[in-house]
Amino acid sequence: MSRLEQQLEFLRVVDALKRVERMTRLIQRTGETSRRENSAEHSWHLALMAMLLVEHANEPVDLARVLQMILIHDIVEVDAGDTFVYDSVAMVGKAEREQLAAQRIFGLLPDDQRDEVFALWHEFEARETPEAKYASALDRLAGMLPNAANNGGTWNEHKVTVEQVMRRNESIATGSDVLWDHAKQWIHGAHSAGRIDSEADRG
Amino acid sequence: MSRLEQQLEFLRVVDALKRVERMTRLIQRTGETSRRENSAEHSWHLALMAMLLVEHANEPVDLARVLQMILIHDIVEVDAGDTFVYDSVAMVGKAEREQLAAQRIFGLLPDDQRDEVFALWHEFEARETPEAKYASALDRLAGMLPNAANNGGTWNEHKVTVEQVMRRNESIATGSDVLWDHAKQWIHGAHSAGRIDSEADRG
Repeated sequence: MSRLEQQLEFLRVVDALKRVERMTRLIQRTGETSRRENSAEHSWHLALMAMLLVEHANEPVDLARVLQMILIHDIVEVDAGDTFVYDSVAMVGKAEREQLAAQRIFGLLPDDQRDEVFALWHEFEARETPEAKYASALDRLAGMLPNAANNGGTWNEHKVTVEQVMRRNESIATGSDVLWDHAKQWIHGAHSAGRIDSEADRG
Repeated sequence: MSRLEQQLEFLRVVDALKRVERMTRLIQRTGETSRRENSAEHSWHLALMAMLLVEHANEPVDLARVLQMILIHDIVEVDAGDTFVYDSVAMVGKAEREQLAAQRIFGLLPDDQRDEVFALWHEFEARETPEAKYASALDRLAGMLPNAANNGGTWNEHKVTVEQVMRRNESIATGSDVLWDHAKQWIHGAHSAGRIDSEADRG
């Protein structure tokens, strides 16, 4: 295969990310239970968030690198599926499944691009550079956005507690203190409105 | 509203792009008629194409600008809907519908970001800068990719001719000669396989 044919074959294979369903739902319209979102449309929304919220990152970031990291961050789910973050059983073996997926799928690209995409993915997963901290903060914020808008959404659906949501998402602060301050208001608002329990509420 | 609240409100409103259906279908699995894709997941796929095919652009481009242009290029469809390019009736009034949509939706952002997003959208639509020519070429190539993979796909479904597909897509060459040369092979391949007629075939 020519270099271009390898690139196009990769692009055809990852089209399947549009079929990978996440737990998160679309933002509701009145009176509706919205469908779950897929990982491809989530990746678009996240990239748009990165573009528009960049002024709130704790450290200056290279936006082009953030966007590329976001565009590839979920591609391993084409083989490995999406894993619900509050499902501790499903989380077992996640890293190994995703590593195998990365080898197969990124391996469809020409060698130099395979290495670049691997590097972006490892950088995102390691959450150490300013770009990865910011991208990861947005990924968590994106999971909260519809829950805050949808009367508690999956928090309510799966009966997670305030404390679980706080622990799961507090790392937003390592990418953006401003966004974490705002996200905490969503959690407290959902708790005040009775849409999510604290551990104390459950006694 | 604070600046951050305006940004988040915009991000909530444009979540609806995940509900806007395009004519194009997902790349098929064996024996399946795949569902139509939506404009949000299309935007993700297009941005990924831009990242991986950038070496094939006719002129050097600023990738960060290309990606931002692609991320916002279809947002007006939240209000204006997607218009099938071969439907000449639906194309009437498209520009006016989209202008009104842009005013409402981009207008949710803080003024400086509203102006930036408007500028990106106008740049994309005008197809004059190297970035816009490349982004526009990819948008057309993305429409062809599943048709080439899906046994003729919407070309066959809507009985468009080789000549219509050639005219519609030949501007790919203004962004990338390499990609247009490859895309022509898809068209000729679909014609040879009897999946799409030329005008001569119809007599």
